[in-house]
Amino acid sequence: MKLAFIVLVLISGTEMTSAEASLSATDMDQVLQYIDNHQEEFVQTLSKWIAIESDSSNTQLRGEIDKMLNVTVKKIKKLGATVELADAGSHQLPDGTSEVLPPVILAELKKDPKKPTVCFYGHVDVQAASMSDGWAAHPYSLTEVNGDLYGRGTTDNKGPVLAWLHAIEAYQALNQELPINIKFIIEAMEEVSSPGLDQILVQRRETFFSDVDYIVISDNVWLSRKPALTYGTRGDCCFYVEVESSKQDLHSGVFGGIVHEAMTDLIALLGSLLDSSGRILIPGINESVALLTEEEKKLYEDIEFDIDTHAKSIGAKRFLQNTKEDVLLHIWRYPSLSIHGIEGAFSSPGFKTVIPAKVIGKFSIRQVPDMDALLLEKQVTEYLNNIFAKQNSPNSFKVSMISSAKPWRADVNNPQYTAGRRAVKKVFNVDPDMIREGSTIPVANTFQNALKKNVIMLPIGPFDAGEHSQNEKISRHNYINGTKLFAVYLDELSKL
Amino acid sequence: MKLAFIVLVLISGTEMTSAEASLSATDMDQVLQYIDNHQEEFVQTLSKWIAIESDSSNTQLRGEIDKMLNVTVKKIKKLGATVELADAGSHQLPDGTSEVLPPVILAELKKDPKKPTVCFYGHVDVQAASMSDGWAAHPYSLTEVNGDLYGRGTTDNKGPVLAWLHAIEAYQALNQELPINIKFIIEAMEEVSSPGLDQILVQRRETFFSDVDYIVISDNVWLSRKPALTYGTRGDCCFYVEVESSKQDLHSGVFGGIVHEAMTDLIALLGSLLDSSGRILIPGINESVALLTEEEKKLYEDIEFDIDTHAKSIGAKRFLQNTKEDVLLHIWRYPSLSIHGIEGAFSSPGFKTVIPAKVIGKFSIRQVPDMDALLLEKQVTEYLNNIFAKQNSPNSFKVSMISSAKPWRADVNNPQYTAGRRAVKKVFNVDPDMIREGSTIPVANTFQNALKKNVIMLPIGPFDAGEHSQNEKISRHNYINGTKLFAVYLDELSKL
Repeated sequence: MKLAFIVLVLISGTEMTSAEASLSATDMDQVLQYIDNHQEEFVQTLSKWIAIESDSSNTQLRGEIDKMLNVTVKKIKKLGATVELADAGSHQLPDGTSEVLPPVILAELKKDPKKPTVCFYGHVDVQAASMSDGWAAHPYSLTEVNGDLYGRGTTDNKGPVLAWLHAIEAYQALNQELPINIKFIIEAMEEVSSPGLDQILVQRRETFFSDVDYIVISDNVWLSRKPALTYGTRGDCCFYVEVESSKQDLHSGVFGGIVHEAMTDLIALLGSLLDSSGRILIPGINESVALLTEEEKKLYEDIEFDIDTHAKSIGAKRFLQNTKEDVLLHIWRYPSLSIHGIEGAFSSPGFKTVIPAKVIGKFSIRQVPDMDALLLEKQVTEYLNNIFAKQNSPNSFKVSMISSAKPWRADVNNPQYTAGRRAVKKVFNVDPDMIREGSTIPVANTFQNALKKNVIMLPIGPFDAGEHSQNEKISRHNYINGTKLFAVYLDELSKL
Repeated sequence: MKLAFIVLVLISGTEMTSAEASLSATDMDQVLQYIDNHQEEFVQTLSKWIAIESDSSNTQLRGEIDKMLNVTVKKIKKLGATVELADAGSHQLPDGTSEVLPPVILAELKKDPKKPTVCFYGHVDVQAASMSDGWAAHPYSLTEVNGDLYGRGTTDNKGPVLAWLHAIEAYQALNQELPINIKFIIEAMEEVSSPGLDQILVQRRETFFSDVDYIVISDNVWLSRKPALTYGTRGDCCFYVEVESSKQDLHSGVFGGIVHEAMTDLIALLGSLLDSSGRILIPGINESVALLTEEEKKLYEDIEFDIDTHAKSIGAKRFLQNTKEDVLLHIWRYPSLSIHGIEGAFSSPGFKTVIPAKVIGKFSIRQVPDMDALLLEKQVTEYLNNIFAKQNSPNSFKVSMISSAKPWRADVNNPQYTAGRRAVKKVFNVDPDMIREGSTIPVANTFQNALKKNVIMLPIGPFDAGEHSQNEKISRHNYINGTKLFAVYLDELSKL
């Protein structure tokens, strides 16, 4: 889940008052009215985008990725933008072969040097989805049920990308001058960790991105039915722990009882990682977490969030924590460790009395400030080495951190958050919740730290969007009002 | 792995001295010579049988099962036998549909009421196999390399079935009278636990099986390059342990840290089953094991078995035990617990930051005398319930024993073992090792306990056959000399 909409306000050249660039209340009303009037059209376009199976995890579907990029370019060009397809280079596939990566879309609308410039980042690839995963309707056929639009990518991230484009379309259709200059960066490999993207960003720091100040990321969801602004995400460090006991799988009748089974070792290793309360047992990790400040603690008090409803929405009886604040702290600003599964063991339905020869446990640790990935790798490796030593096992054993993504945190007092608060108030007539995101959006960190841009995340996805899961959806309410939110946000940015 | 050749000697009607029924040394030499002279033909027939993909675990391949049964019937009829295809009834498939089971072959050669009667049991279905599992040559194309015949089913169990049929063919081709009457029972669903077989046996206790006294099972292998007689097998009790934490898979970023993850519970449950020395931690199990008698202990002393070679053959650095006796005791007469894998967790190559909603751990316990399956189920369930209670988890949790097969043990002093010892000595010029088998051959127990027959296991498979594994094989030496062993065994039985 990652959609970064980069909104950069350039305060350059001639001085300009915010009043000059912003719209009158009547003009804005017309924009909002236009969005309401065209919502069927916007849903139709979303339907066409969802129908393209741009699953970036499946290399057999690169044709769909190309198709999706073409459709996106066409849509952006319709807004009058110039488009560059930036070469993302190539990368190595798991089978060892090399693959040329799909390009990244860089685009900009006609520039008025007197106005600030914004750039939106988004992605148009999706996670894998198939009926066999348990979808109620076909994941690549947009299906509306009770005001919810179901389909893979509706929230993550085709819906929000379209909402941005439609917000601009509304201004243009009404011949209203855009309050700020606009740029886009849209990729199609986000769900496979955006290979090549960081390099494109860094290479264009002094060119394409030089006149950009603010980054908006919309690749996440609200926490409740109340709109939210997001000021932090966790990182993620992914680990393999591999144990091999024999050169081939063995019959448990013939060898059970005499072999140091790889699974016995692996289960002991995985079982040592956390206790039943979810506490990570690897020394040093909990100690590296930044202390909670009083100012930060206050942000949690007003948040609209009912833990029982949240637990019920996923079919869980209760959470590990009992209070709203504790639950939020544990998904947003404390690390967590999840064991995802085991490769190499018997995993099919039915039964097979096999002793698997080589098994790979897969787990990840959500990283938070002030943890350090390299230190974490060392802590995990040393800890598991100790646990393995206690097994007194002759098996071969290896721990590796296969990827790491840094956490991101913004200053909630920076001007973008002011514009965000105002836009939410205008469109939804409430103050937004100030939230974080437990999942990882690595590009936010690159923009903030490598490009020194000021980043905001402005989600429009509903709290129960089901990104990465079965029956992903966006509500019509969120999709259309999200489009309005983006339209107003452009205006509010120009007024800062 | 299960091939039971039933050899039953009926001492009925007129009295008969063993000399009358048995062959002269010259006649037997001719039989053995015939087998040597026809070994190319026997290998060709094996090649044709291996080419039939009679994988009973794949319901899509029932056509191959039918083909295999037809070929077997044809081969048996060529010996002049009358054949009945016994209806095995129907069973329920995992998808809930019902399937008519393949029939079981019941056959008998012309009977001489003055002679004893033998019945061989075998199976002609195989375990699944494909090149992608890591076979060096196609599993369904018999390939000879350095005297080893590679192919799925060479040892388990098409090779031994053919060896029995060829042993009889040798007598007939030389117009030599068979020393005893012969019956066959051949099935094609052994690798999926022989559904319907037990019922057929019990129903025919007073008819087809009434004149049968001894059972020979050859569905196992030697322990070393030295021939062996097998007098025991372990049973197997298969368990599912199921934990469900949510109604659908969750994103570890969004929910990691607050959910009682099903995987955390399951890993703790699986991790509680045994310690790093392989000792089962469930109270009561080790205590139910029959005590080792001095007489039994003595049987282990002379066995030819090198634990380092055995460990090396599977690519293991060392075993859990240090002495030959200890290793053999732990695969043959002590229970073992193996964790086979987890269904529902992420098991593919690559990485997926998923919190699996529902996971099923699969493990089995090899049962030995005097363990009792129902008591075992209770012990496992109570123990895991206690472990789960300590997790303080709100997840749903279930333990179930999905199948159980009893162990089998024969009296090594019964006459069949005498005939077996003599036959091995004649063909291989050594005394056989008296061994057990760690894996399960449930039909042995049914013959012995439900039909009150005296069972022997007479393996001809090489110690490194790789049954159920990649690159299964039988050596030409074992295949041809195994055929001779069976020919001599018939004669020795008649002399008892």
